[in-house]
Amino acid sequence: MLKAIQIVGSSSGFVSYRFRKPQPNSAFSLISRKSIITTSETLLLPASQLHSHKSCSRDFRMSSTHSKSSSSSSLAIQSTILQGNIRKINFCQFCGGPNKHEIPDGEEKVRAICTRCGKITYENPKMVVGCLIEHDKKILMCRRKIHPSYGLWTLPAGYMEIGESAAEGAIRETWEEANAEVEVQSLFAQLDIPLIGQTYMIFLAKLKNPHFSPGPESSECQLFELDDIPYDSLAFSSMLVTLNLYIEDIKVGRPKFHYGVINKRPGTSPSEIHAYTLDFHMQS
Amino acid sequence: MLKAIQIVGSSSGFVSYRFRKPQPNSAFSLISRKSIITTSETLLLPASQLHSHKSCSRDFRMSSTHSKSSSSSSLAIQSTILQGNIRKINFCQFCGGPNKHEIPDGEEKVRAICTRCGKITYENPKMVVGCLIEHDKKILMCRRKIHPSYGLWTLPAGYMEIGESAAEGAIRETWEEANAEVEVQSLFAQLDIPLIGQTYMIFLAKLKNPHFSPGPESSECQLFELDDIPYDSLAFSSMLVTLNLYIEDIKVGRPKFHYGVINKRPGTSPSEIHAYTLDFHMQS
Repeated sequence: MLKAIQIVGSSSGFVSYRFRKPQPNSAFSLISRKSIITTSETLLLPASQLHSHKSCSRDFRMSSTHSKSSSSSSLAIQSTILQGNIRKINFCQFCGGPNKHEIPDGEEKVRAICTRCGKITYENPKMVVGCLIEHDKKILMCRRKIHPSYGLWTLPAGYMEIGESAAEGAIRETWEEANAEVEVQSLFAQLDIPLIGQTYMIFLAKLKNPHFSPGPESSECQLFELDDIPYDSLAFSSMLVTLNLYIEDIKVGRPKFHYGVINKRPGTSPSEIHAYTLDFHMQS
Repeated sequence: MLKAIQIVGSSSGFVSYRFRKPQPNSAFSLISRKSIITTSETLLLPASQLHSHKSCSRDFRMSSTHSKSSSSSSLAIQSTILQGNIRKINFCQFCGGPNKHEIPDGEEKVRAICTRCGKITYENPKMVVGCLIEHDKKILMCRRKIHPSYGLWTLPAGYMEIGESAAEGAIRETWEEANAEVEVQSLFAQLDIPLIGQTYMIFLAKLKNPHFSPGPESSECQLFELDDIPYDSLAFSSMLVTLNLYIEDIKVGRPKFHYGVINKRPGTSPSEIHAYTLDFHMQS
């Protein structure tokens, strides 16, 4: 399953940094020299919230504002971006006690700290794992029967679970979404999307047999010739990036491994899947 | 920072699967054909619990039992393994309401569901990001001044945070642990450790300048010739695997990209860092 929304906006660049000593009131000691894109906090739902009920079909709607700022006040806004949704984590999930939101001793970011038992809640990015399945020089894709991106095409992918490896998760998601049994061949792409706290890991895979059919979250599954990939109705920027990299590799030889960071262009909507930059692209 | 414990045990293998239709009372539909290693639930602390207070110096102590089982009853145990710590998540972190633990409609795993607001809490694996820093044919390593693995050597690494890419996180952790400014060159290794819900992403990196010194969590930082790497006092299996792969690559040419799954051998203790198998190793 893939329930996350790829929200518009851009995180700060990361190639070049100015380092400074941690300040008592500083949430982060690593400040990009690039201009900072402000983003309303409502955009910064952690993956735990985006990770909705599996069979839930409600659409996600979020307000968003975008403006470019290079003023010193942007530091505070950047802190908000980098801190995600921690201030909405109001209760300790272990004892139920109320949380306070402070920078713990020796840390640099605001955390949710239980005032009863002292446990700290951390937010971390989540991994989305999936397969790019090659069969007879075609690619297997699924048409989504769930929101977001209902009716649009994707590679089978979803959140990695506790207790499985990334490859296991990619195999499982392919089974769930396309009833297809696959063997993974290699890791093809790791694509970070910092703004929404997600990292995509897409494996090259082969069908073990030629059988596939739509799972509960798909309305169709289809093998596409590379020239026929439905670029006009892809579900997510991550899938567009993955397919573009794959086709470029195929043109010149065989698939490589790619690492990159997807930053959506400021002021664009989530449905504008072409409005991104692929930063810090490395291949091997 | 790197606070997680690499706990002994082995998750189930994943190369070959028997698929079955989801059952109403089944927590997982993907069952490995391999024999299953039972593991006490106390081992299955999620990374959110292992991810301790940054300056906390207390040691982690956990009980563990290991036995090999191929009986049908092992399915229930495997379910426990695959479900991590979800049954200990007793309260909703947003509204404070009590959670129930059930398989939601359309899902296959037990989740924590708030009985007041209905929100579902998901557990997902966490990413640990770090740098393998090459300088004058030497490798920069840090001696840990925190538990676990106090006094042992590691590559600078720690949990990826919301709002940053994996490469940004690796740069940040290197700054925090070794006061070293680095440029990352390529992603060298992705190593999943399913049992503890962690994925390591280690980047090859270069020092921007020859300055480094111990950060608050390190007692020493040192450049090691490859022949002098302190193999007898490494902190984690993940670092041993990373260094072994790197040295093998260097012997025959240049570093590649590696994906693999680290499974610790059953019956061994966390400090036995050589007691692992590297499964499903792929390189490109």
